[in-house]
Amino acid sequence: MKKILIIGAGRSALSLIRYLGKETAARHWQLTVADASLETSKRATQSLAGTKAIAFDIFDENRRNQLVSEADVVISMLPANFHIHVAQACLAYQKHLLTASYVSDAVQALDQEAKGKNLTFLFECGLDPGIDHMSAMRMIHKIQAQQGKINNFKSFCGGLMAPQSEGDNPWRYKFTWNPRNVVLAGQGVSQYLENDTTKYIPYWQLFRNTSPITIPDYGDFESYPNRNSLAYQQVYGLKDVSTLMRGTLRRTGYCAAWHVLVRLGVTDDTYQIDVSGKTYADFLASFLPAGAGTLANQLINYTGADTTALEKIQWLGLLEETPIELKKATPAQVLQKLLEAKWQTKSDDHDLIVMQHQFGYTLNGEYTEHYISLAVEGEASGETAMAKTVGLPLAMAAKLLSRGKISRKGVIIPIYPEIYEPILAELDQMGIRFIEHFS
Amino acid sequence: MKKILIIGAGRSALSLIRYLGKETAARHWQLTVADASLETSKRATQSLAGTKAIAFDIFDENRRNQLVSEADVVISMLPANFHIHVAQACLAYQKHLLTASYVSDAVQALDQEAKGKNLTFLFECGLDPGIDHMSAMRMIHKIQAQQGKINNFKSFCGGLMAPQSEGDNPWRYKFTWNPRNVVLAGQGVSQYLENDTTKYIPYWQLFRNTSPITIPDYGDFESYPNRNSLAYQQVYGLKDVSTLMRGTLRRTGYCAAWHVLVRLGVTDDTYQIDVSGKTYADFLASFLPAGAGTLANQLINYTGADTTALEKIQWLGLLEETPIELKKATPAQVLQKLLEAKWQTKSDDHDLIVMQHQFGYTLNGEYTEHYISLAVEGEASGETAMAKTVGLPLAMAAKLLSRGKISRKGVIIPIYPEIYEPILAELDQMGIRFIEHFS
Repeated sequence: MKKILIIGAGRSALSLIRYLGKETAARHWQLTVADASLETSKRATQSLAGTKAIAFDIFDENRRNQLVSEADVVISMLPANFHIHVAQACLAYQKHLLTASYVSDAVQALDQEAKGKNLTFLFECGLDPGIDHMSAMRMIHKIQAQQGKINNFKSFCGGLMAPQSEGDNPWRYKFTWNPRNVVLAGQGVSQYLENDTTKYIPYWQLFRNTSPITIPDYGDFESYPNRNSLAYQQVYGLKDVSTLMRGTLRRTGYCAAWHVLVRLGVTDDTYQIDVSGKTYADFLASFLPAGAGTLANQLINYTGADTTALEKIQWLGLLEETPIELKKATPAQVLQKLLEAKWQTKSDDHDLIVMQHQFGYTLNGEYTEHYISLAVEGEASGETAMAKTVGLPLAMAAKLLSRGKISRKGVIIPIYPEIYEPILAELDQMGIRFIEHFS
Repeated sequence: MKKILIIGAGRSALSLIRYLGKETAARHWQLTVADASLETSKRATQSLAGTKAIAFDIFDENRRNQLVSEADVVISMLPANFHIHVAQACLAYQKHLLTASYVSDAVQALDQEAKGKNLTFLFECGLDPGIDHMSAMRMIHKIQAQQGKINNFKSFCGGLMAPQSEGDNPWRYKFTWNPRNVVLAGQGVSQYLENDTTKYIPYWQLFRNTSPITIPDYGDFESYPNRNSLAYQQVYGLKDVSTLMRGTLRRTGYCAAWHVLVRLGVTDDTYQIDVSGKTYADFLASFLPAGAGTLANQLINYTGADTTALEKIQWLGLLEETPIELKKATPAQVLQKLLEAKWQTKSDDHDLIVMQHQFGYTLNGEYTEHYISLAVEGEASGETAMAKTVGLPLAMAAKLLSRGKISRKGVIIPIYPEIYEPILAELDQMGIRFIEHFS
């Protein structure tokens, strides 16, 4: 009998818990779901017979050690910076560990010890990172097995709203992810490789450097480059590639409007301003140096906003005399407060995950462009596309690991056939399916 | 007999040393000039009979204490972060201190102790800060004495080249100041007050937010806002002002071209890139995401550079296949290397300091705009305008202090009539003279 422990039972863990609840029941394994709130872990395991729901304080070291010592495989759904504590307990009690988060330097440093103890610490096994690694590597390995040479690789992913849930919002965007991360996205410099030249794009040029992307059955999107695409040369073994870019997907027009906000400086999180008694129109005026004409006209003249960008910004209420009701805050915090009210999902909204990989490769002297695309919608059951795409690969990997089907040890990510082949196959059966197309 | 000690005898101390050399000789006082290099202190005091030139290591605490203990008034021309060491020795041996640098928090913390020991620590008594404080406060006090209300205050200053020395360079700019500070100028957010609204201008909009400024006899300039103008509300006692802006002056057209460099991201100093074996054209191409047409055309399409901006950037050699000859460097360091070669002053070049204060005030119900402007050129003698305008106010203040004419104690800046009246009067006699005009 295998014992699986899931730490963290929030909304994004729902698909993970349901999948493993059914699997463990069918296999007579044991599943324990621990959360800071007993109510949350109980709600998440409702109707999953045999699954244990418990309360658990991650800062209680004795309890942490006890829970980990009783499991065979541990899945951490905690915020990324907590994984290291779980990882240390897993080392101490020789347990496997799975997460959907990026490998931190602290976690990477445990690689040798994990290998020495014959443990698998599988990270980046959710959506992005996760399904992107698996689907990209399957294609890369396939091309390389045919002695093909990969010239170009571009990869895009976005968490958006399903078509029936985006029409009430001109941005065609709502928060399905940490709002703060969305507001601060792209700050710093973005680096990628294009035609053998490394490109450096500062934040204030990022959202005008978009490319149009079409996802079959879902229409037109646009992408902006992620912070660091260059790391993937190493990770994916694409050292001879001429173009390498990873990007984030938004609905067409989002980036032009967001670029207006970036140009104004209202996404700045580095200094505080006093907005006591101020309205959003006052706030906006503070970022417009010129003073003639209506606020809308000033905005157009100063930022070059076009009608569709202006319409989006007006829809947010940034030109209205509505009180902000904050005292001291960074510009980004003021904007986030407004966005959280406007970009809130409704109870019957469905989210959407879209992903596309674009491969340009040379095979037998012929250059081919080959695309694969994925679209996943949230379900009426309450399982969001985000929860499914993050949780199911993790659940499937936990099953593989419990069954002794993953031989790789140490701190790893799912770029190996023994991991990605069975998971992508099972995801495909569950309707999380890549479509192959040629542009 | 009074004893004055000057620490630091570089080129910017030349006017200071010459003035005090003559004064101390005439008054039978004693002047000691100390520099890390004996050669430098000897060269600076050449032909100044009776002036003592010595070598001095600022990190030698015993020697520092000895020198300070033997003086009555100490002038520090060291880099700003060294003043605190001199200030501590001045406290220990109860000596007055003068510098041309901004008051740091560390220095401000010594205020009470300096007051208790009856010492004057006069900071910000050079050019900017210095002459700007003095000339602004003279006018502010004059308007306030007539019961006038100051509505608007704008103040501009720039270190540039005299008309005969700027024509060989389309930017009409050469380095007369720390090149690194010029390359990084304006990074972060600039804050000022305009029509009762605080304005926040991000770096990437700063150099397009320029205002035209005319200096009598010197023609047209443009200004961009300094980082923090708001602090001057407190410093100058201008709490009820509607507009308050301090700005930096450049020749017309400089800012539009510099804005192109800022937009590209080539002034970024936060990350390193590998430019081994690369040319300046390669470097530029790394900041241009689009790939069609000549480099010049890409630059125009991407940044909106006009012909005059493009001409300035081409003149720098940024579009040429010239090797950079650096390995790892930040973009700002690469740009600085190029600029240091191109914006170098020639031995017969003369520099220029320009300053303008713009006051808008209401007196007896009538609103008046009143400007005062200053222009100072460097001299064939080797005394630059920078050395004169930084050094002479400091020298005059040292004379006043030695003669017991400054009653204010503690850490102060020259905003008091007992300081600015005699100094501005003497500067006027020496030709460093503000012209009053009405726009």
